[in-house]
Parts: sequence; C-alpha cells; structure tokens
Amino acid sequence: MTDTHLTPADIQAHLDNLTKPPGSLGRLEQVAARLCAIQQSLAPRTRPRRLVLFAADHGVVQAGVTAWPSDVTGLMIANIVGGGAASSVFSRVSGTELHLVDVGSVSAPLEPGPFYRAAKIGEGTANLAEEPAMTQAELEAAVAEGRREAERAVADGVRVLATGEMGIGNTTAAACLGCLLTGAPPEDMVGRGAGADDATYARKLQVVQQAVQRAEARRAPQASPEDRAAALAGVCGFEIAAMAGLFEAGAAQGLTLVVDGFIATAAALLAEDRRPGTAQQMIAAHCSAETGHGRMLEALGLTPLLDWALRLGEGTGALLALPLLDAAAAMAGEMATFADAGIAAE
Amino acid sequence: MTDTHLTPADIQAHLDNLTKPPGSLGRLEQVAARLCAIQQSLAPRTRPRRLVLFAADHGVVQAGVTAWPSDVTGLMIANIVGGGAASSVFSRVSGTELHLVDVGSVSAPLEPGPFYRAAKIGEGTANLAEEPAMTQAELEAAVAEGRREAERAVADGVRVLATGEMGIGNTTAAACLGCLLTGAPPEDMVGRGAGADDATYARKLQVVQQAVQRAEARRAPQASPEDRAAALAGVCGFEIAAMAGLFEAGAAQGLTLVVDGFIATAAALLAEDRRPGTAQQMIAAHCSAETGHGRMLEALGLTPLLDWALRLGEGTGALLALPLLDAAAAMAGEMATFADAGIAAE
Repeated sequence: MTDTHLTPADIQAHLDNLTKPPGSLGRLEQVAARLCAIQQSLAPRTRPRRLVLFAADHGVVQAGVTAWPSDVTGLMIANIVGGGAASSVFSRVSGTELHLVDVGSVSAPLEPGPFYRAAKIGEGTANLAEEPAMTQAELEAAVAEGRREAERAVADGVRVLATGEMGIGNTTAAACLGCLLTGAPPEDMVGRGAGADDATYARKLQVVQQAVQRAEARRAPQASPEDRAAALAGVCGFEIAAMAGLFEAGAAQGLTLVVDGFIATAAALLAEDRRPGTAQQMIAAHCSAETGHGRMLEALGLTPLLDWALRLGEGTGALLALPLLDAAAAMAGEMATFADAGIAAE
Repeated sequence: MTDTHLTPADIQAHLDNLTKPPGSLGRLEQVAARLCAIQQSLAPRTRPRRLVLFAADHGVVQAGVTAWPSDVTGLMIANIVGGGAASSVFSRVSGTELHLVDVGSVSAPLEPGPFYRAAKIGEGTANLAEEPAMTQAELEAAVAEGRREAERAVADGVRVLATGEMGIGNTTAAACLGCLLTGAPPEDMVGRGAGADDATYARKLQVVQQAVQRAEARRAPQASPEDRAAALAGVCGFEIAAMAGLFEAGAAQGLTLVVDGFIATAAALLAEDRRPGTAQQMIAAHCSAETGHGRMLEALGLTPLLDWALRLGEGTGALLALPLLDAAAAMAGEMATFADAGIAAE
C-alpha cells in the first residue's frame, strides 16, 4: 500500500504505455488493472500466496440432498493433507501453500501439522431441513476461525489469499444463502452439486425452498438485527462461515482475495453482507457449472477469469486461475515501455 | 511414447478413477485427456518446454494495411531478446524457454546468442498486393528453418513446443491463407490486427480480396501441384512458413504442439495442408479477438483453452495457457485414485 491513491486512469495510462498495442492483451489487461487497483501498485505481487481450505459436514445430508455420504468429507480431508487430491496437486504445480482447517467434520481429527489443524465448531451442522443449521454464536465462532487464518496469512507475508472448501452437502447450504443474499428464487440457485440424480435434485430443491421460506420470514423488514443474522446462520455451514471470516479480515488487511466456486462465492456474499466493500478486494477465479454461480458473481460485481464448467470445489478453480494472475502482475510490473524500446507510440 | 496404444476409453477410465466426482473438473478433464492421447501416456509431461518465435517483415505494409511501420518488427525483436516484451515476461513467469529466430525482418541482425539467431530468407517478403510474396523455394527455405527448430527442441529434450511470431503486416498474409485453406470469404477472415482504423481496414480487406482471387485462380482443380503450392507461397510470410515447418517436424517427432493466435493458426492450417494429421498433436491456446480465428480453429478441429480477446501475438496466448496444461497433466499423473483414498466410487 502506498500513500498516493492510484486512480483507474493512472493505471490505464501505465498499461497503455507498455510495449504492446493498447488493449491487445484483452481480458488480461482488465485483470492487471484490477490487481493494480486492489494492491494500489503498478507492480502488483502474487507471491507469497496461500490457499486455505475449510472442511465441515452438513446435517442436511440426512435429508437425501447429495449422492455422497458425509464420511467422504473426512476421507477427502485425509486425501488433501496426504497430497493426492486435486487441490494438493494443483497447489504444488502453481507454487501455492495449502492449509486445511477442519471446522466441523464428523470425522476424527488427524494429527495436527503445519498445514492442518482441527478447530471444530461442532460435528457437522444440524439438519437445516428441520431446524436451524447453527446458532448465531456458532456462526461467529466459525467466522473467527476464518479471521484467524487471514491474520496468520498476513503475519506470514502472504499477498494473495485464496479460500475453498470440502463438505458433503454444502451446495445445499450455499444455495440457501445465495437465494437470501441475491434475491434469486431457489430454482435458479439449486444445481446438481457433485452429481445429484433427478430424485436427489428434487429433494434438494424442496429442502432449499422450505429453508429459504422460513429464513425469509425471520429476515422480514420488521425483524431485529439479531433475528436477521440468525436467519442466515440457520442455513449456513461452518466452512462457509469460516471462509466469510477469512474474506472479511483479509479485505480489512488489504490482501488480494481469490474466490473459488459456488460455495466460496456464497461465503463471499455473506462477507459482503457483513462488511460492505469486502468484494472490492476480490478476484473471481471462475464461473462454475453450478446453477446460480453466475448470478452470485454478478451480485458481487465480479467477472470470473475462467468459464470451464468446474464443479469440484476444494479451491481448485482458484488454483487454476493463479498463474493467470501471475501473468497479469508481471505484465504490469515487468514489461518495457515504448520509450524503453525506442518505439513511437501509435 | 509407449508400445501399447491408449484408447480414449482407457484414458477416460483413468480420469474417472481419480478422487473427484467424474467430470467435475470440466474443461480441464478434456485438456488432460487430449494431453494423454497426444503423449500416449496417463502421466503426460509439460516440461521441458519451449516457445520459438519467428520474426519477419511483410512487403504488403507498403499497401497501407497496418497502423505500424515495418521497423517496429526489428525494435520488437530487440525488446523480446532484451527481456521487456510481453512474451519475455510471460516466458519467465511460466518457466518456458524463449527462442527467437529472425527469418526475414528488414532490420539489422542482433548479435547471435543462445536464444536468438538470424536466418533471413529475405529482407521482408514482396508486396503481395502486387506480386507473389515469395517463391516456392523461399517458402521451403523458411519451412526448413522451422523444421530445424523442432529438431533442435527434440534434441534438447523438449516435450511441449509452442510457437509464435512478430511481424508487422502479418495478419494480412494470415487472412489470405485462412481464406484459401478454410474456404471462408475475406470479409469473415480480415480483422483489425494490431489496431487498424476504418480506412486501413478497408484497404486491408481489398488487398486480401484481390490476393485471394489471384491465388484461387492458380489453385484451380486443373492446376499442377507446383502451381497449387506456389499459390500459397504467394500470400505467405517467412515467419508463417517457419511456424508451419516447426509444426510439421514437431508432430512427426511426437511433440505436444501449442498453437498461439491468428497467425500461428494460419501456420497450423498450412502445416495440416502439407502434412495431414499434424493437427492431432496440437493444443489451441486461445481464440483471439481477430475475426476469423474461430473459423480457422474449427477447420483444424481444435477447441481453444482461453477466450480472452487477445490480439498481441508473440506467442503470448500460448504462454498464458501453459500453466493450464501443467494442471491438466498433474491431474492425470499425480492425483490419488478412489482406491488409494479408501473411498467407494459413486
């Protein structure tokens, strides 16, 4: 951060003075401009960088909303920490440190290590199809875990912080939040997650419709601020609240935040709702295959880098996008100007 | 290369056995499958890798088809070799060796070095608006320079070879080739290159229409093979012919070839015309902002990775796409299987 504020015009003038026809790097120039604006620097940095994954389970799995059982969350936590998951592999190839925090899976914790810790708010949420998924106090506890990770990242010198998740059932919670925070109807926000068949999809849609209806009643204009907050907690997930906390604290500290897929974007909406302006520090990695993701990104004013029909989660989309940020940052900070190269600008 | 031929079904079965919901990495899975097929390996490699740029000038600049003068080609050669161009910067951040061969610019050659050599077929082509840009012998000499670079890459152990170009005026030559090799009319193939205004665009379109008409007359069904080949030489560029030679020889040697933008894709069409099957070794990095690029890629059966409205050339699109290939290769070769992770596949 510098004292002098860089305006969009300052940034554009800098980019147009580099040895390329103005605008000829297309979308990459927009990404470079955004990085410059977020970091308030004409030589933005993308390292050191880190991906923090939060894992948790969801009581709503009991309502038959997903093809996979909850114990897959724990097995995937072990797979991620063990280095065999997609996120493990992509973090290695992109040179990104990967941390994982279990904020509430039903599985037994692993041995703590430098890149893994367990900080369970509960053993999964309650079944949001029948009762509030969590209390407001539990939501704040999960948010605090996310804030802690953002502060740790700042202390470690991280410049770009991405976040993602693992949690069987979490597209259901994310769809509820998406409806409540964008105003979209459930049929526009409920998708097939990690592979729901027609019957599973129908149950999931009904669960979301009912949960959103109950939550909307609690969020009515005449409701108290406490009731409004509790309505969101009632459909949230521990990992979603933790990601929101990471975004809030990361933005407050001036970090560049990279948003992954559908569930991380629901967390971004929650963070923006809690701390308006947080989205200004965000870069959206991709628009996923999940119904409703595009609408969420639009509500945040974010343009995704990739449109690759990803639907895995685990921060994989964020990891795929990071090298594109490297190129954008290097363009802004390392290219010669027309004057350097002895070329008369057009 | 292995002796056992890997079928698409073998590759799909492998990818579906990795710890992710089948298909959940979307477009990346298709890229991984293509890499596996090209390299005939379930653990494809993306390093060592190299970008070879070919630079040359175009006599057709005299016809007023571009906003930039020919001496910019030489200044940009110096800028690329000096490390200040977009391609220099992106090659550093993506860990890609950058070589540049001047096959025919009007500028004085630089001192030779490990990453630069001059091998000029001429000091720019003739003005294709008035006469054939080059003879068939010149085209073959330029192709031979490209073949030489592919063979050098193979000798150096390169697995992934990208190619790109620098040459003021070369979108005009590429548009002519695009028309002749895809059958598209000039109005679908002529764009604004590095920034043509309306008057420049109108001149460019007329030049292409006339050149294509003359070339088509020489390529009539009753023409001799020599006349048909000479028709393409008449609208070609030295750097385009060299890229075609690199593709031909690289494909013959089993390299994974990465195609950059509009001009490199014109070279890919020429290579496929000369040696059918060459495109099977290719991966298209992006679909550029240039009119007609999509049509060229379609003719080659290639699906681009990025659609970022790039129009710089210099192999910049290829360099931006390489980290996505890294992720695709690592997915195929490094992820755990469901059995490894103790998860019952869906």
